[in-house]
Amino acid sequence: MPAAAPSARHGNTARPPFPKDKVRHMAWDRGTLRVLDQRELPLREVYLRCRTHEEVAAAIRDMALRGAPLIGCAAAYGVALAGANLARAPRSSWKTRLDAACRVLLDSRPTAVNLRYGVERLRTRARALLQEGAGAARLAAELKREADAFTEEDLECCRTMADLGAALLKKNSTIMTHCNAGALATAGLGTAVGVIRRAYQLGKVRHVYPCETRPYLQGSRLTLWELMQDGIPSTLITDNMAAHIMKTERIDAVIVGSDRIAANADVANKIGTYGLAILAKHHGIPFYVVAPSTTVDLRVKSGVSIPIEERSTREVVEIYGRSIAPLGARARHPAFDVTPHELVTAIVTEKGVVRPADGDRLKRVLAA
Amino acid sequence: MPAAAPSARHGNTARPPFPKDKVRHMAWDRGTLRVLDQRELPLREVYLRCRTHEEVAAAIRDMALRGAPLIGCAAAYGVALAGANLARAPRSSWKTRLDAACRVLLDSRPTAVNLRYGVERLRTRARALLQEGAGAARLAAELKREADAFTEEDLECCRTMADLGAALLKKNSTIMTHCNAGALATAGLGTAVGVIRRAYQLGKVRHVYPCETRPYLQGSRLTLWELMQDGIPSTLITDNMAAHIMKTERIDAVIVGSDRIAANADVANKIGTYGLAILAKHHGIPFYVVAPSTTVDLRVKSGVSIPIEERSTREVVEIYGRSIAPLGARARHPAFDVTPHELVTAIVTEKGVVRPADGDRLKRVLAA
Repeated sequence: MPAAAPSARHGNTARPPFPKDKVRHMAWDRGTLRVLDQRELPLREVYLRCRTHEEVAAAIRDMALRGAPLIGCAAAYGVALAGANLARAPRSSWKTRLDAACRVLLDSRPTAVNLRYGVERLRTRARALLQEGAGAARLAAELKREADAFTEEDLECCRTMADLGAALLKKNSTIMTHCNAGALATAGLGTAVGVIRRAYQLGKVRHVYPCETRPYLQGSRLTLWELMQDGIPSTLITDNMAAHIMKTERIDAVIVGSDRIAANADVANKIGTYGLAILAKHHGIPFYVVAPSTTVDLRVKSGVSIPIEERSTREVVEIYGRSIAPLGARARHPAFDVTPHELVTAIVTEKGVVRPADGDRLKRVLAA
Repeated sequence: MPAAAPSARHGNTARPPFPKDKVRHMAWDRGTLRVLDQRELPLREVYLRCRTHEEVAAAIRDMALRGAPLIGCAAAYGVALAGANLARAPRSSWKTRLDAACRVLLDSRPTAVNLRYGVERLRTRARALLQEGAGAARLAAELKREADAFTEEDLECCRTMADLGAALLKKNSTIMTHCNAGALATAGLGTAVGVIRRAYQLGKVRHVYPCETRPYLQGSRLTLWELMQDGIPSTLITDNMAAHIMKTERIDAVIVGSDRIAANADVANKIGTYGLAILAKHHGIPFYVVAPSTTVDLRVKSGVSIPIEERSTREVVEIYGRSIAPLGARARHPAFDVTPHELVTAIVTEKGVVRPADGDRLKRVLAA
């Protein structure tokens, strides 16, 4: 992923400062990765400390941390941890061990492509270092530095997308969003919520409706929490209220993130996104997707080829361990769905806005 | 509401027996109304005993029992209880007391018109009895008999609608439904679920997807429970999975109930119905509404005039008393939405099928 170059886009005038994150939800701390356990939000702020790549993979798999860009960064730090832990093993096993660590991290979740980019970026750097004959200490330090750079680039992407996305909105907009595409889903600031934050700074946001996003409730637990921390006026709705709110309130835009974008601009995102896009179209409301270019997977031709993770149905039939369905109930739990590009008004990346969203324009913007 | 006359419609051949209710969810028992507390389902079967019309109104308001047809029947029994409790009061106060009881019951919930029909049916009978100079014992007995008749008519309506609705489905249908329009929502059998039950008997149902129906989870707690009791193959989905399932599985019909139908055939039903109707249209799936003629309110011209109950937001931000949103979160809780008749393929009433659903055809079918 090339670093964003916002100065070129925004001229040399300094852009106003961005809202600061109030939470350090992922940080390198004395040779370990300290991550905020998002499953405990909004009621408690609990932190996990990952000492190995296996612990990072488990945190990703069990959704202690989630959000496509963030799990890419976490996976990068996972490889860095694997690198730091090589010192105790014979040098001849390092390459095999690093490859095995990458596989464990890649296998933690299937849908977000950012995970693969994070792992591959670190693997490439690790291989180069091994070829250079780097010792354990240098390997550890350089991999940590590479993960830092990958994470800083994600944050800079968010800043650029926030500027580009906010420019699409008109004054006093009321916005609907889904799941959590916020600071908690990225290195910071957020993708969709980053746009909302920036637009709010610029006086363009009147109100936000986050959909609660069953079964994991990222909308009520995470997005609403972020919005309330920033003092942005917001009202929680259940997912099935979206159509009624679109009809009875003025909604100016639906803004969501993405976990993977295919070459033809089809968008995989949290389950429920596809339905929201249909409802937005029915009501004539623009539907914006905000995602860094690392979310685009040109190897996948169209949305039908994006693997959709089927998670445990326990997450559907239980809430906080309490059963909400009859014993023995059968359920489905696709964690994502695919929105065909025809339903997407524009895709905002750090390299520019793809509008309307189609494969040709997407490739052109990415190549710019 | 005139009683249904299914024999006329189905010829003189006996129709096959209907599936039996396995649960007596509302029953007159030694001068009280015994009701299954649906809030405790599916984990526990707990019964409440209502001795007064106030207790019936509270049970309706607090959703111990719900479902438009059922609350109509419960309200009828509420008036019967008020009648039975007159014996202790001076005769001169009877009319005032009965009127007051009717008002309390009418005020318990605003959207379902069946409630009004149940109350008005009993009030009319009570007034006639008072004019005839009926004594306390006769008044009590006659009002109880009238509530019984009203309830039996509802059950017979369900049977007729089940036959008419099942006839619309093709063999091996996969059906999506929302909320609970089942036996638990009616005197028995159900409206939408009544159709599914009947169609399953006839070998026409391959699979059912009930949407969980946040915030009250009537789909997962009640509909799935009813379907599992009947051994009908069914898979629970969260509301936001509906579009994805429509796209990736073959869904042959969406079938829902209704709380009120306007003169132009606009349909008020549980929040989320309107969105489902849009999604069904987008995917070319027929969208059926099953509701007795008592659900039609000709006094209301169109859906925009149907009052939409706004319930406590606590029901959105808490599940079983556990907070799922940040402290102080703002939320919305419209309990219903309105589906414009253009999105409705057909309305199945006990008097016939309104297809396509529009005001003229609706009036014609009701007058038949």
